[in-house]
This record gives sequence, structure tokens and C-alpha cells, in this order.
Amino acid sequence: MIPRYSRPEMTEIWEPATKFKIWYEIEAHACDAMADLGVIPRENAEAVWKAKDVEFDVARIDEIEAVTKHDVIAFLTHLAEIIGHDEARFVHQGMTSSDVLDTTLNVQLVRAADILLADMDRVLAALKKRAMEHKMTVRIGRSHGIHAEPTTMGLTFARFYAEMDRGRQRLINARAEIATGAISGAVGTFANIDPKVEAHVCAKMGLSPEPISTQVIPRDRHAMFFATLGVIASSMENIATEVRHMQRTEVLEAEEFFSKGQKGSSAMPHKRNPVLTENLTGLARLVRMSVTPAMENVTLWHERDISHSSVERAIGPDTTVTLDFALNRLAGMIEKLVIYPDNMLANMNKFRGLVMSQRVLLALTQAGVSREDSYKLVQRNAMKVWEEGKDFQTELLADADVCAALSEDEIKEKFDLGYHTKHVDTIFERVFG
Amino acid sequence: MIPRYSRPEMTEIWEPATKFKIWYEIEAHACDAMADLGVIPRENAEAVWKAKDVEFDVARIDEIEAVTKHDVIAFLTHLAEIIGHDEARFVHQGMTSSDVLDTTLNVQLVRAADILLADMDRVLAALKKRAMEHKMTVRIGRSHGIHAEPTTMGLTFARFYAEMDRGRQRLINARAEIATGAISGAVGTFANIDPKVEAHVCAKMGLSPEPISTQVIPRDRHAMFFATLGVIASSMENIATEVRHMQRTEVLEAEEFFSKGQKGSSAMPHKRNPVLTENLTGLARLVRMSVTPAMENVTLWHERDISHSSVERAIGPDTTVTLDFALNRLAGMIEKLVIYPDNMLANMNKFRGLVMSQRVLLALTQAGVSREDSYKLVQRNAMKVWEEGKDFQTELLADADVCAALSEDEIKEKFDLGYHTKHVDTIFERVFG
Amino acid sequence: MIPRYSRPEMTEIWEPATKFKIWYEIEAHACDAMADLGVIPRENAEAVWKAKDVEFDVARIDEIEAVTKHDVIAFLTHLAEIIGHDEARFVHQGMTSSDVLDTTLNVQLVRAADILLADMDRVLAALKKRAMEHKMTVRIGRSHGIHAEPTTMGLTFARFYAEMDRGRQRLINARAEIATGAISGAVGTFANIDPKVEAHVCAKMGLSPEPISTQVIPRDRHAMFFATLGVIASSMENIATEVRHMQRTEVLEAEEFFSKGQKGSSAMPHKRNPVLTENLTGLARLVRMSVTPAMENVTLWHERDISHSSVERAIGPDTTVTLDFALNRLAGMIEKLVIYPDNMLANMNKFRGLVMSQRVLLALTQAGVSREDSYKLVQRNAMKVWEEGKDFQTELLADADVCAALSEDEIKEKFDLGYHTKHVDTIFERVFG
Amino acid sequence: MIPRYSRPEMTEIWEPATKFKIWYEIEAHACDAMADLGVIPRENAEAVWKAKDVEFDVARIDEIEAVTKHDVIAFLTHLAEIIGHDEARFVHQGMTSSDVLDTTLNVQLVRAADILLADMDRVLAALKKRAMEHKMTVRIGRSHGIHAEPTTMGLTFARFYAEMDRGRQRLINARAEIATGAISGAVGTFANIDPKVEAHVCAKMGLSPEPISTQVIPRDRHAMFFATLGVIASSMENIATEVRHMQRTEVLEAEEFFSKGQKGSSAMPHKRNPVLTENLTGLARLVRMSVTPAMENVTLWHERDISHSSVERAIGPDTTVTLDFALNRLAGMIEKLVIYPDNMLANMNKFRGLVMSQRVLLALTQAGVSREDSYKLVQRNAMKVWEEGKDFQTELLADADVCAALSEDEIKEKFDLGYHTKHVDTIFERVFG
Repeated sequence: MIPRYSRPEMTEIWEPATKFKIWYEIEAHACDAMADLGVIPRENAEAVWKAKDVEFDVARIDEIEAVTKHDVIAFLTHLAEIIGHDEARFVHQGMTSSDVLDTTLNVQLVRAADILLADMDRVLAALKKRAMEHKMTVRIGRSHGIHAEPTTMGLTFARFYAEMDRGRQRLINARAEIATGAISGAVGTFANIDPKVEAHVCAKMGLSPEPISTQVIPRDRHAMFFATLGVIASSMENIATEVRHMQRTEVLEAEEFFSKGQKGSSAMPHKRNPVLTENLTGLARLVRMSVTPAMENVTLWHERDISHSSVERAIGPDTTVTLDFALNRLAGMIEKLVIYPDNMLANMNKFRGLVMSQRVLLALTQAGVSREDSYKLVQRNAMKVWEEGKDFQTELLADADVCAALSEDEIKEKFDLGYHTKHVDTIFERVFG
Repeated sequence: MIPRYSRPEMTEIWEPATKFKIWYEIEAHACDAMADLGVIPRENAEAVWKAKDVEFDVARIDEIEAVTKHDVIAFLTHLAEIIGHDEARFVHQGMTSSDVLDTTLNVQLVRAADILLADMDRVLAALKKRAMEHKMTVRIGRSHGIHAEPTTMGLTFARFYAEMDRGRQRLINARAEIATGAISGAVGTFANIDPKVEAHVCAKMGLSPEPISTQVIPRDRHAMFFATLGVIASSMENIATEVRHMQRTEVLEAEEFFSKGQKGSSAMPHKRNPVLTENLTGLARLVRMSVTPAMENVTLWHERDISHSSVERAIGPDTTVTLDFALNRLAGMIEKLVIYPDNMLANMNKFRGLVMSQRVLLALTQAGVSREDSYKLVQRNAMKVWEEGKDFQTELLADADVCAALSEDEIKEKFDLGYHTKHVDTIFERVFG
Repeated sequence: MIPRYSRPEMTEIWEPATKFKIWYEIEAHACDAMADLGVIPRENAEAVWKAKDVEFDVARIDEIEAVTKHDVIAFLTHLAEIIGHDEARFVHQGMTSSDVLDTTLNVQLVRAADILLADMDRVLAALKKRAMEHKMTVRIGRSHGIHAEPTTMGLTFARFYAEMDRGRQRLINARAEIATGAISGAVGTFANIDPKVEAHVCAKMGLSPEPISTQVIPRDRHAMFFATLGVIASSMENIATEVRHMQRTEVLEAEEFFSKGQKGSSAMPHKRNPVLTENLTGLARLVRMSVTPAMENVTLWHERDISHSSVERAIGPDTTVTLDFALNRLAGMIEKLVIYPDNMLANMNKFRGLVMSQRVLLALTQAGVSREDSYKLVQRNAMKVWEEGKDFQTELLADADVCAALSEDEIKEKFDLGYHTKHVDTIFERVFG
Repeated sequence: MIPRYSRPEMTEIWEPATKFKIWYEIEAHACDAMADLGVIPRENAEAVWKAKDVEFDVARIDEIEAVTKHDVIAFLTHLAEIIGHDEARFVHQGMTSSDVLDTTLNVQLVRAADILLADMDRVLAALKKRAMEHKMTVRIGRSHGIHAEPTTMGLTFARFYAEMDRGRQRLINARAEIATGAISGAVGTFANIDPKVEAHVCAKMGLSPEPISTQVIPRDRHAMFFATLGVIASSMENIATEVRHMQRTEVLEAEEFFSKGQKGSSAMPHKRNPVLTENLTGLARLVRMSVTPAMENVTLWHERDISHSSVERAIGPDTTVTLDFALNRLAGMIEKLVIYPDNMLANMNKFRGLVMSQRVLLALTQAGVSREDSYKLVQRNAMKVWEEGKDFQTELLADADVCAALSEDEIKEKFDLGYHTKHVDTIFERVFG
């Protein structure tokens, strides 16, 4: 978790104070359920709620942990200091530390997912707005980095929208996967605690009971969660790469927004670097690197080993904080991206109409010219454009053999951009409904 | 794709003959749709179906490709050889190679997913059967590889069932993600082909139209697909590791099935190696290694570059073939796994009742003995078990201080296994419904 | 291993016939050593060499393996069929299968490394040749894809040379790491075989004896080997990406070589796709994906488990074959890469001298103009270039305030490319010696 | 970087104060070199050293950066505040930010490598000591987790020593790779700065000049560095896994050290969890996860993009800090590991001599019994051991057919452990010299 790539909304989830608050809530709800079951006295359950508005003293808990070498015991000791040792004596009864730790981790991941979903909504809104704005802003489509046929900037935004929207649905699925809790005891048999306690705690914490746990909640859920973040990060990199390409000096179809006062920009007006999207490219790698260890975490020995724990202490916060920051940076970048439609047209016309050569070729064959002859006709005019800098349409109109097959209007029609944008509405309808 | 780790059902999907058959069907259906639209003559569309039952000559296609350096053109040329060059002249009109290639890849991945789903059903059936069979077969639960509290072998099978069932649902989602096709032309604008052609072809091929494509179908779909396979493989490794542990000489709670005739087993009857599950552990790594490149594939330059293609040529077949083989090996292993309930009991009793020390400790405190005294009482008897090989229950019953707090029946009850299995039915109900 | 991305030199190493040949040599040399030690009769050792020139019958060995379920036994049986069962009875005595398998794998990896080193030599030779050729071909250096200061194409080739040369040294190290053999018996104690046998076999096979083996050669060696290939592949991707950028339509500073006859290129002369380097980008991912499983393979249970084996059956051939193919493709691409120096100059001058604004700014401050004033002077001229399409040098020469501080010669000198290339010789000396 | 998995020796390298100190030293040495060259006045170079013992005010630098949005400029401004703006005016002349940043990163990585090398020395010393101590402590060797033949605990330690020693050599190589600096200006051409400045700075900072840089030092060096750490982490996991297996309840051949006072251990004396080695298993995953992004960082656009930077801000500190902590934990764990030789013997004898069945089989055939008959003889006695709990040696001695072929002494000799340990000295000589 690097401060410069963090937002407080997300880091707060992972702070000790938040963690202890969740631990507390789990223990308090568990006491309520045990009191309902008659397992512990009602007044002891009620006593726990005395700490409802207490800010736990993280330093004090650390101090106790330094002695007990056990984080949950340290917390429970501190809780007893607050509500009274006698009142606290039934807290955590029949539970195992993992009941608290694993349920808490999932509460944190669910909250993180909710923030990430809001982030994605911001990204989606920005993409949709820009798509509408540039729905018919024509630019050249490129395959292999080479000019192919015209498309529009709106379609580019729209496909990123569709991709991010898929990511959003995947994240909803991943959130559902991770939204379970377990209060099932040492090896998950409920030997020392009634399943009704689990049901009550989970309901209160916004989780479903894990159908079958061991000492821990199974880690395939977490693997799927981090894998999903990895895919979303990859889509983010896809968008970032498009912008980096558009901003490179020779292309200059778009630029990340530069505030007027930003130093140095006017003495070197060409030197505006796409640093946000380059940064997003790196952040995507950081998010993605959690996927493999999360998958390696799935295999635990028997009812649990603790190999997964250190991994999660790192990737839990780091990955969600990084992706949250990145999605917000991405949204802001899209919202303010400066688009240069004139440069798009200029780029498209770099080879003076040559990108239309395929259409002309097809038209000639459809007009009855043999495929070989059509090819020769296109080629001899294309080479004049390529080698001598001529204009393709002008050359075609001056070529008697071409004009014998196609009328002036027919030739000109081949250079009509409307031909390429005629289904943009259809596609937008498919994407935005 | 390693022959010894392959099943013909899956490899067939990736054979050239299958690929050409799918290409053919896409082209033929596209012609039908174009004829419906009046774009090409009906008789030309009908002529394509003359090749319906033809086995395409892969060697001939390769021969043509060696000249044209283009696989789709080579195929179309061969198709024209079969149905007649004149009849074939409208085939592929307005389409781009990727329309065929990408739609075909997704058809293959969907078929692969269907086989994998059937594989998982076999695994699930095996796990359920063994879970029911050993629902109440008690064995010691272990955390950190160390004896904790009793559980049952049925619960072990049941949790693997639940985990694999989640994997199955994830695969259903991933299959849905990948079940799209695109017939949208050079940069995805439908400039040269009507979207209705795409709709028709997709319907016939069991796919949905990709809402917005460029030259290609977006690769976040494929990344999600391979990430999902990676999670399933990790769950497979989890099961395999459990069996490897159970089979190690000192544990011997289960063994992979050995046929009677298997050489050497009776001269070294102890030397039965869990080679299937060790192999599954390695195969899981092979499946998982496709996840990162699949995610790196998501970023393509503008409307496409071809960097993803070589990756998919490898991981498309390799990953699905390996996982298919592995899931079948897993299912077979589970179906025949030899379970040793007696050894489970012997292992649990390795330290003569010590695993119950926690329950005794709790009972003493609940009987009014102070926590410190309870601890001392348990400790002094536990140490006799640990250091002198005594039996824990016997020692407790002979300890006057313990007996002052707990009756003989109460002490004996602490060693009752039914205490640990009382909620097994509940858990089974949650898992199997 | 995908046929289209394979060269026979490398695939041959991994063919069954090659493997059996190596097995044979190991067994034969081991017999010699055992005869020298008087452990087996000399004539039996000599008899083994009767098969020296035999082409082993792979189908027959497979047939036997189908019965014995053991590949090494199947091979030994077939060997006995050739040299006589009685003569063969001491072959493999005291050895374990892994002695043969692991030593063979390392022989194969060493041979693969030798081919890869030759491949890298070809890449290095090509880079050096092109570096010398374009040592002083000026082009704009770019940071963040944005024009910065001039550099030369020769420096670009030279830095790729230096990077690949580091890769070559790494591969030499990795080859040395993998060049060990072990003939140490069931758990590596030499209980049943004298260490002198290992020494003899290793010397004959071009290996060093593994100082301490278990049943297997330790897998950290292999992890390092594949990690090294992963780094080399990443450097390859670095070169490929540079070329892809240079070839994109708007840049066009280089193009992969297209043979004249290559279809379609003259009707669409702008449409030459960098398919080789895009392919190399994908192949780099394939090579790299072996790194993680190779590292996961390092952990084996006790004296060995067989989890590593399936991974190596895949990544051993696949990774070396893919990298071999890719390095050759890379070398060929570099050798024939078409460079466009005129376009380099045109690109550099896209903003008519603006890339020199930094030098002018510095010169003004050094001439005594305050930093603030210098900045304003540069800015007002730069904006005329940026917004009105003027030429930077012309504007400066026409600016009285600028001319008050700098002479005409001084201004012109700021646009001298020699300023930027003056240390190219020094750098070349450092790289090429 | 997680506090509980961090040691101050390593975290200090990555603190802002350390970073600014290195920046300062680079700038100061560069001024000296420029003064030597007559490029800047000597007194200005000397003035920079006035800040030699200053503790830079990180908060003040952050404050300036909040305005300038540029970390190096913020630092230089703060430096000017200390030494005087006029005195400072030649600092950084002709340099680019990356000259400072990249050279600093490598200084940090070199220092990190030095600490890691010391860590590995501690691990090596511990392994060697324990190897010597248990050189002849016999235990059963296991393949596939199944008893095979005897080996010694000393050999286990010795092989981990050899593996870590290879890791140490790899780290020395990686350190050498990363020990370069670059002071070469905006695109690496030395246009604005003499190469002699680079030479001087590098000499002073303990680095070699990077033979050819662009704006940045090439990232293949860093990829190799992190790949090497990944291999070392994998070896660490290998050791950790061995200990986890040895400690599991049914094996109990070793235990991580538990201090007497450690709560709970005596009431549940069997419940001592191998939490250190489980933790090391997870930490290994964290170290390893940096390998792929480090490799993805190798490809930069043209003379640099900044995608690598965020990745390095994370993995630079996180990976070195985690591995440093882990190696120290590993060393401490090994130093104090409690070994149970008696349990080793008890485990080996779990099947009462059956592990020697192979030797008996071989002896019978060597005594002239046919292979088939030998097998039957061994088998009938082995099955009595396996199924009826008999002792193998006793049964053999009571089997007339066996005794007809082998004398009592010969039979007994087959159970002599010295047979298996006779080459331990040889192996130790190979490992420890």
C-alpha cells in the first residue's frame, strides 16, 4: 500500500481500528445469539454492547499482544478491560479465532468490493458520456497499429464501456462469492457452538453462512475474488494503452488534461506526457500480481494451515487499495481527456485516401471488372499516392480505365465516411440499450 | 498438450478438421443470411451447403497456405475447389478473417466448457457418494498439521463437494462470457456486412452476438475464462494435497486404488505411492500458468494486434485438455480411493485422549474451578500422557481433584465422539440440500 | 509445442528417440564404471555397447510400457531384447529410475541451452551489424511516447545488443547451473551404487556430479533456468515493441521486411503489418509463463514427490522450443528490418524545431537572462510554432529580445544535431569494446 | 511492507530520509566531477558539501512537492534552502531526474542485496551447524511421502545448505547486475553532461557506469534481480515444507522451538503448531509474486515510459523487506529446531523392517535364486509383516527357503543401517568441502 496510490475511503477499511470494530461486532452479535439460545446469560450479552461507541485503543491492544502473542486474545482482554472482566467472561465462548478473523476478512472484502463497484460506476459514467459526445467523431481504425478502415471515437469509448460493464458484473459475482461468514469452531463441526449463532452473526454482518467451513472459510472464494480484480485491472490497462497511443507525438489524437498553470508546458508545448495512463499500466501489474498467490492459497493442509495468512495481510489491502486508486484515476482521466478530432481526420488522411483502396477494389469487381484487372487498376493508382504523394481519389477520377467501370459519383461515394458510420447507432443501442 | 495427459473428447475440439468444420459452418450460415438479405444470390448460398458432409482435406489446405501464407484464404480456396469457384465467389463477402477465427475460438471454448462441466459433474458425483458413505467415519481434524478436534471423513468429502460445486457455477458463468460471436468486418463497424448476418450466424452456432467488437472479440472474456480454470485447478490441487497427506506412511488414512496385479506392491506392500494426486498437483500448475498470459492478452493496440494469437494457440488447447484430463483422473481417484477408518481412529488416539484436553478444561471451569486451577489440573494429567504414555481419561478418573469437580459420567462424556458429530446432518443438509 | 512455432533443431532434443538414446548412454557408461569397479563383469558392460548404433524402436518400448506401466523398465526390457537378456542383466544395477530421468533432463536442457546460445549469437550479430550501419542515423528520442531530444538509431540497436548480451551471460550461468547429473540411488545415499559411477557417467555426458541429490536433482536449478529464459523473453518483447512502434502508420520509421511478391501489399501499400514482432510479443508471454510453475516445482516432499514431473514434461520442451523459434524469428526480423531515415528526420521536425526549446532556454539563462525572462522568451516563440505552425529557429532569429542575448550563430548552433551525437562513439566503445 | 514482517535494517533503506541522502550524495559527487571538468565553479561544488551532515526535512520536501508536483525539483529546492540558492544554482546541471532516481534505486537494491547476503550467511551457518550435529542421525528417506530407504537428518540439512548456497551465488550475480548507475541526460546521449561525471558518481556510489542507458537504466537488470529473489524464496519454501511435514502429529520428527512459558503448550502438549514455517510458506509466495511484474517492466516505450515506476515503488521495498524478514525467521527456526531422533527411528520401524525388503530381494537374486522365486520369498514374508504385524527380519530368519539361500549373518546384514550411511562422509565432503 503506497500512500501516493491510496484513497482514504479504501485504506480505512484496512486500518486496525476498523478491524477491531468488526471483531467487536461479531463477538457482540454472537453473544446475543447465545443469549437467545440460553447458552449464556442475557445480561452478559447486553453488557458487551456497552462498548458500542467506544473507540478501541489500538496501542493498548498491541501492548497486550506483545505479551500474549495472540491478537484475538489481546483484543478480548482489552474488551474485558472496558466492559468488565466478569461481564466479559462469556465473550467468544465456543468460538475459535478464525471464526472472527475469517468473517472479518470477508466483511472487509465486501466493503472493498462496494467501493470498487462505485468506482466502476464512475468509470462507466465517464465512458458513456464521452462515447455520446464523440459518437460520430470519425477516426481511422487500426489493426496492427496500421491504418485499416474508419471508425469513430465514440465506438472506442463504447467498447471500453462494454468491457468495464462486464468487469462490473464479474465484481458483483465475486462480491457475492466472498460475502460469507463462519462461526463454526475449531474444525468447523459446530461441536462447541450452535449453528444458529453463525446464522445470527452473518445476518447482522450482511453475510451468508458458509455452508461448510473447516477452521477457516475456504480460500477458493478469495482466489476468485482476486482473479476478478486481475481481469478488471487488465481491462484498465487496455484503456490506458489506447490513450498512451493516442497521445504519442506522431498521433496526437488525444491528451490527458493539463491544467493551464502546469509548469513548463508552454515552453515545451509538445511535451505533455501521458503519465496518468502510464501509471495505470504499472498499477494494473500490481493488481494482477495478487492472482497467483491467491490461487496458491487455496490449498491448505487438512482443516487449515496458516500459510494463507501472510499473503492476505499483504494482498488484501494492497490490491484493493491500488485498484480503487487506479479506477478513480482512470475515471478522472477519461472525464477530462482532451480529444483532437481535427488530428484524427489529418491522421486518417495521411496517405490521401489510400485507406479506401479496398472499397474501390471491391466496387470494380462488382462492376464487372475481373479480379486481376481490378487489382491492377487499384494498384497503379495506389502506388502514385504512396510513392509520389498524389491524392487517391483525384488519381482514380483521372484514370480512364477506372472511369470506364465506375461513374464519378460512384468513385466519390467510396470516400464517403457515412458508409462506415451507418451502424454506429445500432452498436450504441446494443451497448447502452 | 501432452498425449499422456489428454483425452480424445477434448483434443478433438482442437484438431484442424474440427476447426475447418466450424469455419465452414460459419461461412455457410453467413451466406444464408446474406441471401435472406438479398445481398448475394440464393443459389450461391445454397451451393455452399454442398460441402455439408465433406471431410475437408487438411493436407490440401496446408498446401495452399504454404503458397498464400494465409490460413483463411487457403481454406476458402479449398472450399471453392469443392463447391466450384463460381459458386463460391460470394463466400466470406464483407467479412474479415477474424470474424471467422474469433467466432470459431469461442465455439471451441464453449464446447470445451461443456466437456469440463460434465467432468465436474463426475467429480461432484464421486465426492457426494463418498461423503454419504463416510458421513460418520470419525477422524481427527487437524490445524497446522497438528491434531485438533474430531471431525468426519464425510465432512472432508462434503467440503470438497461444496468447493467444486462453486467451481462448477463459476465455469457456467465463464462459459456464458465466452459464448459470443462476431461478424462485424475489418474494424467492427459493419461497414461491409449487415449486423443481421452476425445475428443469424451466432444463433446457428449457439452464441450471442458480441455487442461491440473491433476486428476482434474483446479478450477480457478469455482472460476471465482462463482465470476461472485456474481457480478450479487450484481447488483440484487442494483435494489432491489432502489425499497425499492421508496416504503418507505415518498417516495411512487412505490410499489411491492399486489393482491387485500392479507389480511390486506385495513385496513392498508399504510402498504405494500417491502418484495420481501428485500428478494432479503438477497439472494444476500447468492449468494455472495460463492465467497471467491470458490477462496480458487483454491489452491490444487500437482495433487489434495479433500478439494474443500465439498465446491462444498454446493455452486454448493445452489448458482445456490438461484440465479435462485432470478432472477425470481426479474423479476416478475419488471414486476408488481406499479409506482406512481404523487407521483414522488409531491416529486420533495417538496421544491417548489428549485431543480432548480442551473440553475437559472448559468443563472444569464451568464446574466452578478457577481458570488457573483448571489449567493446572489438566496440565498435570496431560503431561503424564505426553511424557509417560498414560491414557488421559484413565488419569483424569484417577485424579481426586478432577473427580471432586466432575463426576465419572461427566468425565467420560468429554471423550464421546458424538459430541463432535452432532451437527454433521445439519452441515450435510446445507451442502447437499 | 506448436508446430508453426518450432524448429527441428530444438524439437529433436525432446523426441522420444533422443531421450532413449540418452538413457542408453547413461546406462552404458554406468556399466563401464561398474565394470571398472569390479562390481559387474567386464563382458556385460561391453555387451551393452552392441546397441551403440541401434535406432531404438519407440513403438516397441511404448508397447512394453503399456504392460509394465513403467517407462524406464520398458526401455530396459527393450534394450535386453537387443543385446540379450543375459548380457543385460546388470544394466541399471543399484540405480533408481530418477538417476536416468533427471540426468537425461539436464542433458536435454544443456543441449537446449547450447542452441539458445547460438540463437542469441545470431541475434547479437544482427543487432551489432544494424547498430554499426545506423550509428549516426539521427532520430528523435522519446520519453513517454513524446518527443524529447535527438538520439540515433544506432544507439537503439546498441542498447538492445547490450541487453541481449546480458541475457547471453545469464544463459551461460543458467546452463552451468543445470549441467549436473546424479546417479545416487533411491534416496541419494549411494547405498547401492558407488559415487564413482556417477562421476564417470557425468564426465561422459558433459555434466558435473550433483554434490548432493535425494532421489532427484534439486529443482531450484531448473527454476533458475526457466526464470532466466523468462528474462530473455522479456528483453525480446522489449525489442519487438520498439519495432511495432516504429512501424505504426503515423511513425513509419521502420518496417518488417516484405518480399515483393507478398500478396496485396501494392494495392494497399500502407497496410504492412508488423506481424513478426506482434507474434514475438505473444511468444514472450508463452516463455514467461513457465517461470511460476518452475518455481512452484522447487518444493518437493521429503526426498521427492512427482508433482514436478508433469510440469517439466510440458515446459521443458514448450519453453525451449518456443524461445528458440522466437529468437530466430527475432534475428531474421532484425537482419532485414527496413529503416527509413528520412521519416525519422521528418518525425523529428514535426513541430519545426520545438524539441530544441530546452537548449535555447538554457542558453538564454547562461547568457545572463533571468530564468523568468528566458522562459517568457522561449514560450512566446514556442507558442507561435505550436499554434500557428511557424518554424522555431526562424521565429527566434526574428525575435529582437532573443537576438539581444544570443548571436545568430549561437541560436543556430542550438539546432545542430552534432551536439546530440558527440558521445555516440564513446557509448559504442563501451558496448562493443 | 507489513510491519510484523519487517526488520528495521531493511526498511531503513527504503525510507524517504535514506532516499534523499542518496539523492544528495549523487548530486554532490556530480558537482565535484563537473568542477573537475571546469564546467561549474569549484566553489559551487564545494558549497554543496555544506549539507553533508544535514538531516533533510522530509515534511518540507513533501510540502514543496505538493506545489511543484515533482519530487526531484522539490528536493533540489529544499537543498537550495540549506546551502543557499545562489550556491545551489549549478546542482543537477545537465542531468535528468531519472539519472538521480535510477541510480538511487540501484544503490538501494545493492544495499538490500548486501543485507540479504548476510541473511543467507546466517541461514547457511545454521544449516551447516545442524547438518554436522545430525550427520549420522538416521531417519527414513521418503519418496512420494512413502517410506523408501534410510538416510540421515544431516543429509537433509546438507542438501538445504547446498541449495541455499546456490541461492547465495545467484544473489551475488544479481547484485552485480544491479550495481550500475547512469548520469547520461534526457535520452542517454550525454548531450548535456560529460560521461566523466557518470564515471565519478558511480565510483563514489560503489556502482559501475551503465554501458548504455536511455533516460533510464534498462529494466532487464531489475527483472533478473527479482527473479533471483523468487528462486531463493522458493528454496526457502522447500525447507519450510520439510519442517512442516516433520512436525505433523503423526510424524513428529522435529518441532519448531517453543519457549517454556508459551501459553497453553502444557495443557495441550501435542498442540505445537509449525506456525513459523507455515508463515514462511506464505512469505515465499509474496516474494515470488514480484517476478512477473518485474518481467513485464522490461518493455518500455522508446527511451522510457513510466509504467515501471509504480511497480518498483511497491516491489522494491516489499520484496526485499519480506525476504529479509523471512530469511531471518528461517535462520532462527533452523538454529532452534528441536529434533527427535527417537521418533525418527520409531517411524522408520513403523512396518518392522519392511523398508529393507528391496535389499533382501536383491540379495536373494545375487545368491542365485531366480528373480521369480526371490520375489515370492520376499512377498510371503512381507505380507505377514503387513497384514499380521510380524517383524520382517524374524520372519525371514524363520523361513527355511530364505535361510537356504542366505546365512543368518547375511540376513541380519540387510538390516544394518551402516550400509545406508557409508557415503555420508563423501557427500558432506562434496557439500562442505
